[in-house]
Amino acid sequence: MFKQVFHTQLNKALKTKMAETEVAQVRFGIVGCANIARKVARAINLAPNSILHAVASRSIDKAKRFASDNGLDPRVKIYGSYDQLLDDPSVDAVYMPLPTSLHVHWAVMAAQKGKHVLIEKPTALDVGELDTILEACQSNGLQFMDGSMWLHHPRTVKMKEMLFDSKLLGNVNYIYSTSTTSASPEFFENDIRVKGNLDSLGALGDLGWYCLGAVLWAKNYQLPTVVTALPDVTTNSDGVIISFSASIQYTEPSSSGATTNAIIHCSFLADTSMDLTITGSKGSLNLNDFIIPQRESSASFEFTLGAKFVDLHIGWNVKPERVVVNCDELPQEGLMVEEFARVVAGIRTTPGMLLDPKWPEISRKTQMLVDAVKKSVDLGCKPVYF
Amino acid sequence: MFKQVFHTQLNKALKTKMAETEVAQVRFGIVGCANIARKVARAINLAPNSILHAVASRSIDKAKRFASDNGLDPRVKIYGSYDQLLDDPSVDAVYMPLPTSLHVHWAVMAAQKGKHVLIEKPTALDVGELDTILEACQSNGLQFMDGSMWLHHPRTVKMKEMLFDSKLLGNVNYIYSTSTTSASPEFFENDIRVKGNLDSLGALGDLGWYCLGAVLWAKNYQLPTVVTALPDVTTNSDGVIISFSASIQYTEPSSSGATTNAIIHCSFLADTSMDLTITGSKGSLNLNDFIIPQRESSASFEFTLGAKFVDLHIGWNVKPERVVVNCDELPQEGLMVEEFARVVAGIRTTPGMLLDPKWPEISRKTQMLVDAVKKSVDLGCKPVYF
Repeated sequence: MFKQVFHTQLNKALKTKMAETEVAQVRFGIVGCANIARKVARAINLAPNSILHAVASRSIDKAKRFASDNGLDPRVKIYGSYDQLLDDPSVDAVYMPLPTSLHVHWAVMAAQKGKHVLIEKPTALDVGELDTILEACQSNGLQFMDGSMWLHHPRTVKMKEMLFDSKLLGNVNYIYSTSTTSASPEFFENDIRVKGNLDSLGALGDLGWYCLGAVLWAKNYQLPTVVTALPDVTTNSDGVIISFSASIQYTEPSSSGATTNAIIHCSFLADTSMDLTITGSKGSLNLNDFIIPQRESSASFEFTLGAKFVDLHIGWNVKPERVVVNCDELPQEGLMVEEFARVVAGIRTTPGMLLDPKWPEISRKTQMLVDAVKKSVDLGCKPVYF
Repeated sequence: MFKQVFHTQLNKALKTKMAETEVAQVRFGIVGCANIARKVARAINLAPNSILHAVASRSIDKAKRFASDNGLDPRVKIYGSYDQLLDDPSVDAVYMPLPTSLHVHWAVMAAQKGKHVLIEKPTALDVGELDTILEACQSNGLQFMDGSMWLHHPRTVKMKEMLFDSKLLGNVNYIYSTSTTSASPEFFENDIRVKGNLDSLGALGDLGWYCLGAVLWAKNYQLPTVVTALPDVTTNSDGVIISFSASIQYTEPSSSGATTNAIIHCSFLADTSMDLTITGSKGSLNLNDFIIPQRESSASFEFTLGAKFVDLHIGWNVKPERVVVNCDELPQEGLMVEEFARVVAGIRTTPGMLLDPKWPEISRKTQMLVDAVKKSVDLGCKPVYF
């Protein structure tokens, strides 16, 4: 239902928002007209507490094309350089879908210009770079969040409730997550995500971010003990990872008493999958579209509790149950923008309001796991300890 | 529907079969009254070309209790030793659900006494022992098969058709399989599958057999290049594996041109799961009950072909499709017995009829993979090459 509103209703909504509630809304600038920016531009316009104020590309023509291709309101400012957008005093916050190698420069620059930062994943090439960004945001009193949309879906919230209800799944023993996509020859030729000088983390940074994030999420952001890349890693001629798997072990029990093993698999070489399975001592939870739900307005997951075999082991005593979660007010990326704008608006309007440390912490731990897998790959799949 | 027929209809069917078609039927002896023997006793009676002739335990009381607990026909012979059953000239074939450490002795003994051998998995403690069994069967002109029931389910046949239709999934890039069960404290205390002197392969032999078999099945029984145990292996105080994962790599392309990575995870510590996912370049196939279907009379799997995201990446262009396969003539273990008995009857009744090499080959390759994982675990998770 959301996808039909981009050009017409959305602009109507936009105008109403601009006219009536401008003061309360967070004004976004988009720095970089990557493909994903189209989705987030729409989300900014859908979220009630934000508005798209400006877009910038390195070339004015590309920025103009982005605006016209996406039917943006004519009042949206079009800039032919990132600097110009960052110098616009009306921009409160930036959304930054740049190649990873450019993040540290432009995110720090944005923070120095007083802009809150919503940045695409992976947040940086390593946690050292990310810390530079986080320090720039922190010291300027600016909120930071990465673009992990799925964390904001009501299905994710519902799954977390079930996960941390000790009566349901029990101690989490095993987590499995995939993010795969069968990339085209053009992708391998041209996409920034497989270019050593742009996104040297490749599939690890792009797809692995989700799976490593899902493991952390399921463990309530406890860091693991050891991370080991599996020997199935594949790299391209630039040395960029295009397919890999990793084992993530929690040998120290969590507060629930569980030691947990996780396995992730990420690849640009296999057909689309985004599986997440969490298996506890008493039940399991399973879904096959955790990153981007198959349908926008509702999503589901399955769970099985206390599965045993019936007498003679000729079937199961239970069938998986399906939980459907509606998501009909805003799509997950709209909820992400709304949450980010809520924190930003609070900081702007409420004296003494603190930054929300939750989001930078999630980003930083995810980046630490990315770094650990990278290190393990570089060491020939040796274990990397935390 | 099958489960209700054990005591009443089944015995009626049994009597009819005994009276009318005795000559054509393969007469089974069950060597060892393990729990799983109850399921296979029923299967032997359900299959139209086989009949249960005798059961043996090391104690006559246990054998009698097995017969009465399972409502076996009074004409079924009850033996208090395995030797007695093997000396019964009316027994054509044995089903042998003994602890793995006893397989080589009793299976060779059975072959020497001229009995065809249907044996529980894992077939042996290592491929050397299995070769001893296979040689004994081969040299005596006897068929060998292991008890992997799922290979006989019509769903498995249907999935294989899809898998090897080059227009559908494309080259298989990735296989993932689990077999987990949350074992009770009593299991860890008493079950033969965690006793170093009985089933020293533990979860690797018991659960791993299915997952390694599924990888081979999906690769049309091509052997991999390298097998590596993951560092998450857990052993008990006997040194028996109770939880493990492994990476299986095919670096040499198969006839379809694909190199394939597989990951398996097997554990006695996590709630029941038996997932199998096969991801190709153009689609994927997924089911969560591949070893024992949730329902006996029909089973299903899901597949997704050419999944892409719709414009703006706000959903998928396709939803997984579900294929339901009926299995209402015989349950999978009945089909296994029927297939085994078909080959055995052919050998018995048709002069010059050859043994079917397919089943021993499947067992042998699966055992080779079990051995490779064991070796990798023993080497501290080093890769083991084929």
